[in-house]
Amino acid sequence: MNILSSLLDLRTKRLSLDGKVGLVPTMGYLHPGHLSLVSRAKAENDHVIVTIFVNPTQFGANEDLSKYPRDLERDLELLKPLGVDVVWNPSAEIMYPSGYQTWVNVEALTNPLEGAMRPGHFKGVTTIVSKIFNATQPHKAYFGQKDAQQVAVIRRMTLDLNFPIEIVVCPTLREDDGLAMSSRNKYLNDEERKAATVLFRSLSEAKKLFDAGERDADVLRNKMKEVLGSEPLANVQYVSCADYDSLEELNLIENKALLSMAVFIGKTRLIDNFVLG
Amino acid sequence: MNILSSLLDLRTKRLSLDGKVGLVPTMGYLHPGHLSLVSRAKAENDHVIVTIFVNPTQFGANEDLSKYPRDLERDLELLKPLGVDVVWNPSAEIMYPSGYQTWVNVEALTNPLEGAMRPGHFKGVTTIVSKIFNATQPHKAYFGQKDAQQVAVIRRMTLDLNFPIEIVVCPTLREDDGLAMSSRNKYLNDEERKAATVLFRSLSEAKKLFDAGERDADVLRNKMKEVLGSEPLANVQYVSCADYDSLEELNLIENKALLSMAVFIGKTRLIDNFVLG
Repeated sequence: MNILSSLLDLRTKRLSLDGKVGLVPTMGYLHPGHLSLVSRAKAENDHVIVTIFVNPTQFGANEDLSKYPRDLERDLELLKPLGVDVVWNPSAEIMYPSGYQTWVNVEALTNPLEGAMRPGHFKGVTTIVSKIFNATQPHKAYFGQKDAQQVAVIRRMTLDLNFPIEIVVCPTLREDDGLAMSSRNKYLNDEERKAATVLFRSLSEAKKLFDAGERDADVLRNKMKEVLGSEPLANVQYVSCADYDSLEELNLIENKALLSMAVFIGKTRLIDNFVLG
Repeated sequence: MNILSSLLDLRTKRLSLDGKVGLVPTMGYLHPGHLSLVSRAKAENDHVIVTIFVNPTQFGANEDLSKYPRDLERDLELLKPLGVDVVWNPSAEIMYPSGYQTWVNVEALTNPLEGAMRPGHFKGVTTIVSKIFNATQPHKAYFGQKDAQQVAVIRRMTLDLNFPIEIVVCPTLREDDGLAMSSRNKYLNDEERKAATVLFRSLSEAKKLFDAGERDADVLRNKMKEVLGSEPLANVQYVSCADYDSLEELNLIENKALLSMAVFIGKTRLIDNFVLG
């Protein structure tokens, strides 16, 4: 497993990799969700590149950039047994050198949901993913369904900018009690950790209604709000029942849809989603 | 010579090209300036891809998109003897399908000069060039110094977004009387064609001062304005003496600099430039 930081070292190594290359871009502090992406990339490609970079440009001024959890040594230990060929762990100075001034922006899809709550977030995401795509030149790139809007935005960007890359979306991994795995779960104290299951519970209750035939999006949104409202530590930022492709809020569910939410549990902001249909 | 329009056909063909690939992106209506880029690409690579696409998103609402000269048959005749492997001539629907919403933007470098006169122009340029880079995956891409700011912007974008592509800048080709070759020269009537040499003459006069030791940028700008002012058909839009890399206007010339201008000759907007130092 080659652990590289400079772009030149990465390029040199990439040129030596014959066959299909799979990419798993991460911000580190890996959990089983990340590792499932790596395993799938390994199974579907000749070589796997994992990037670890806490991208400053996708954090807002009041967000958790400085305290975002980092543990490179632990991450490398987790990756070693999985047959990863290259870990690229560039510095912020390598990614955004002095004079840096180029941005990739996806428009309509980044307006609602996370985009509305985190202005500039997706501009940071699409820019860094473009840079990582160009630097690593993968055949396939693996992302988790946990970040549903990110997946939609990156699929759109890949299509729009003609990246010759297949975007592979992998299911959200969950703890036994349903909490979606996330590096940010580390922020939760014991009491908050218990309360955090309310996201999964509210999604499950709404899905039950859908599975029983309910197609009125307001009924599903209200059910999610009702369950979330029953948890005193939960502070709802948004609850959505949107078209899966456009992310526009629905009245009636006629095609594939996305239930999603952002909820503060104490000071920790968590997101989760279910795909319907 | 393969003449392709769909992205899938292009990708399939690209995968069959072994060795180094050179790209010459054009808007067609080729002149010897374009052909010199193609010849250089042919000399420096195993294969050459030429793209011909009049990119609507780099034209302003009041600009000459609809009357921009087009002659694909003639272009192909000119390219055939040069050993070009692939001509990619996509439609606007292929490049910007329904739902298209992703843009690449370079910031500071696109503010002055052409960027100030043509709002949105460079956003269109950097977006289409990103798309063409991803679609053709060249090792080297060839651009003319005639579009000096475009060259600066594309070099910056290539660096910033980690495109693994070498940008090769080729000298401006000129008619015998000094007029820079341009597809837009076709718009000029006989009288305007004669008057159009004033751009070259004003740049030459300013360069004479520089070669004689003058380093005050105002003196050079004033000399260019003076010469341009002597031509009744010329209507100056801007005259610049700027830092070659940052494109910021200079007081004193201490490093590599760019003399540039945009001038209307009748209704035709022409640009030209000299590099100093």
